Amino acid sequence: MKHLDTRSPDFQTELEALLAFETAQDPKTEQIVADICADVRRRGDAALIEYTNRFDGTAAHNMTDLMLDQNDLQAAFGRLPADIQTALKTAAARVESYHRRQKLESWHYTDEDGTLLGQKITPLDRVGIYVPGGKAAYPSSVIMNAMPAHVAGVGEIIMVVPTPRGERNDIVLAAAYTAGVSRVFTIGGAQAVAALAYGTETVPQVDKITGPGNAFVAAAKRRVFGVVGIDMVAGPSEILVIADGTTPAEWVAVDLFSQAEHDEIAQAVLIATSQAYLDDVQTAMERLMAEMPRRDIIEASLANRGAFILARDLDEACAIANFIAPEHLELSVENPQQWAEKIRHAGAVFMGRYTSESLGDYCAGPNHVLPTSRTARFSSPLGTYDFQKRSSLIQVSEAGAQILGQTASILAHGEGLTAHARAAEMRLHGSTGK
Amino acid sequence: MKHLDTRSPDFQTELEALLAFETAQDPKTEQIVADICADVRRRGDAALIEYTNRFDGTAAHNMTDLMLDQNDLQAAFGRLPADIQTALKTAAARVESYHRRQKLESWHYTDEDGTLLGQKITPLDRVGIYVPGGKAAYPSSVIMNAMPAHVAGVGEIIMVVPTPRGERNDIVLAAAYTAGVSRVFTIGGAQAVAALAYGTETVPQVDKITGPGNAFVAAAKRRVFGVVGIDMVAGPSEILVIADGTTPAEWVAVDLFSQAEHDEIAQAVLIATSQAYLDDVQTAMERLMAEMPRRDIIEASLANRGAFILARDLDEACAIANFIAPEHLELSVENPQQWAEKIRHAGAVFMGRYTSESLGDYCAGPNHVLPTSRTARFSSPLGTYDFQKRSSLIQVSEAGAQILGQTASILAHGEGLTAHARAAEMRLHGSTGK
Repeated sequence: MKHLDTRSPDFQTELEALLAFETAQDPKTEQIVADICADVRRRGDAALIEYTNRFDGTAAHNMTDLMLDQNDLQAAFGRLPADIQTALKTAAARVESYHRRQKLESWHYTDEDGTLLGQKITPLDRVGIYVPGGKAAYPSSVIMNAMPAHVAGVGEIIMVVPTPRGERNDIVLAAAYTAGVSRVFTIGGAQAVAALAYGTETVPQVDKITGPGNAFVAAAKRRVFGVVGIDMVAGPSEILVIADGTTPAEWVAVDLFSQAEHDEIAQAVLIATSQAYLDDVQTAMERLMAEMPRRDIIEASLANRGAFILARDLDEACAIANFIAPEHLELSVENPQQWAEKIRHAGAVFMGRYTSESLGDYCAGPNHVLPTSRTARFSSPLGTYDFQKRSSLIQVSEAGAQILGQTASILAHGEGLTAHARAAEMRLHGSTGK
Repeated sequence: MKHLDTRSPDFQTELEALLAFETAQDPKTEQIVADICADVRRRGDAALIEYTNRFDGTAAHNMTDLMLDQNDLQAAFGRLPADIQTALKTAAARVESYHRRQKLESWHYTDEDGTLLGQKITPLDRVGIYVPGGKAAYPSSVIMNAMPAHVAGVGEIIMVVPTPRGERNDIVLAAAYTAGVSRVFTIGGAQAVAALAYGTETVPQVDKITGPGNAFVAAAKRRVFGVVGIDMVAGPSEILVIADGTTPAEWVAVDLFSQAEHDEIAQAVLIATSQAYLDDVQTAMERLMAEMPRRDIIEASLANRGAFILARDLDEACAIANFIAPEHLELSVENPQQWAEKIRHAGAVFMGRYTSESLGDYCAGPNHVLPTSRTARFSSPLGTYDFQKRSSLIQVSEAGAQILGQTASILAHGEGLTAHARAAEMRLHGSTGK
């Protein structure tokens, strides 16, 4: 891990180098994805079945082989051990409860001229949830993507998940069952994204696609954006821990590990106000590393992108956090609320020593799909609001039209838009209406 | 204009052909924009000045020649006639009032285990508003883009507007003055977008860029998306009018014109339930066309993309509207609220015969930046909420950690993420903490 010190004259440069992560879009990937998308759009199910068999090693003859309904999902849930069933239900219920508070409601008001103004909230009709297959299949991601859509009142939630060599993941399907997924297609890759975006004979066209995927999935989502909505295209996951030295060093060590174990480009950074505490955490990490089955990934991640930062005080640590705008921020300090008030930019803030990021990842309630790579400066966690949208409502009264019409007319003429002006003027009393 | 009839067996095919509009991204434009962005990122102000002089025909020697401060904006406002000053102020005040109601507020709650959960709302630190120069310079767009940012509490609102051959538009600058813009750079094109996204010695890096522009601006916004936030990349503007025949035909005729006059690819569609009324509107359009200074544009737009649709009844008309998901929907009918309830997808709904779209474009209060090209199925008008973002707050109590920790541990082991599980388990009472 790198060691940075805010007292160093090169600190800001070193910090920016630490954070730098450029996701170049590979032209070869782009071309492959463009071809797949065009082909699925043109040939529908036939293309979808071909690509699925080719890339996932399946032997589907028709779309029926690639579809799962509610009964299949319920059966998968039924096959799980009781403790996992309970954990899934507990997590889903907590996520549901939190996301209910995010639900937007319609409103309107009437101004003094009798003009009604408002904002109508409508859930999306149909959405697609992309779930990666194979080793990156995370049931918690199913809950975190599908539950907000379910709470929003989305009419139909379609999940796609590839099943490499036909292998189905019962926990993933069970998670779909607990989170309100309507039905599942066992497809993946760019072909699944294209099917959802354009629709095929069997896969219905959706209005938005969310969920993580590999480079092909990300490129396909970028490509179909505009035809359908998409969530953010996420970068590598990150944690920033700010510690005042009152949390057991082992706890912080494992919190850093839990970020690093995601993959080799994940980023785990600790800011503390004493070198002694940084040393304690480092010692704890060295000791605990042996217990970690994903040790190779953790070591690579920490070597590549991990860092210890020694700061003068917690105020300075918070200022650095605002610059980094981390996906996950642990304030492992006394009186965390006092310090949280100074945080302007973070995907999620985990306050106090008992709030490990992993509790938030699975079951605290808030979403674990969070803005990465400094995008928390301008974007938000995935939420219920991402599956609702707004329409403006305007009903101008006859009296209101007399007043607004004059303003609109002046401004429209100022812009040289005569028809706009005439449309306002015709509604004025005494207009010839001609 | 095309004539469609819902009773025709080919209606759905004809409707889809009418709506089809593919915005191909031109690889040549992409390459030019990529080069400009890379150059501005590398050479900063020097590149920015060169491109501006080359593309805008200016003769700037340094960045001071391309900057306007509050005093300059106020002076521009002062030079305007009193009626335009009043109209700008009236429009800005109404837009401000509506957008205040959109402001998101932070919230939190504590669950039965003493765990605090919440959502913290923070305005963006700094945003950039792109305003086109030349003939497409619309002061109303300045208000509609800047005011939501101002209401959100954004710290600094930077406007960029090109000044071809040094020509400044006083109404645009005055609009900036009324809408809370902090300062202006008289730059445009891809170079302005790059300067805002990456920052230069003089132009500060922003967190989000909104506002319309030409193909180069749109391509540049797509390119820098991720480094900064962007608003939607808008397609051609559209209106759908649903009329029950009770609105004077001339009013509807001019409402269609006011959309068509924007440009040759704008789309104006009227659905009515009687052929006689469609004929009346057509006659009115023929009669009023002569009065329109932008007649050539209107005629081209109507010929290219305009349509009259004869529907069986208003229920069917609303179903068509939901399929189209129009940017602007006029319900020019009796009891418009009853019909508005059936509308699920529209950027803005203009209810009743006195509510011409143009009143909404300028001064009713809601935003005129609206989702186009059927994207109202999944996206919303530009609003205050686009300049605020959310951070999740989680503070798990010691008691809460005992309960949540068990669920998280089970699910983390299910995903093979041991460090995640250990982080939860270490917070359990009786854990060895090792």
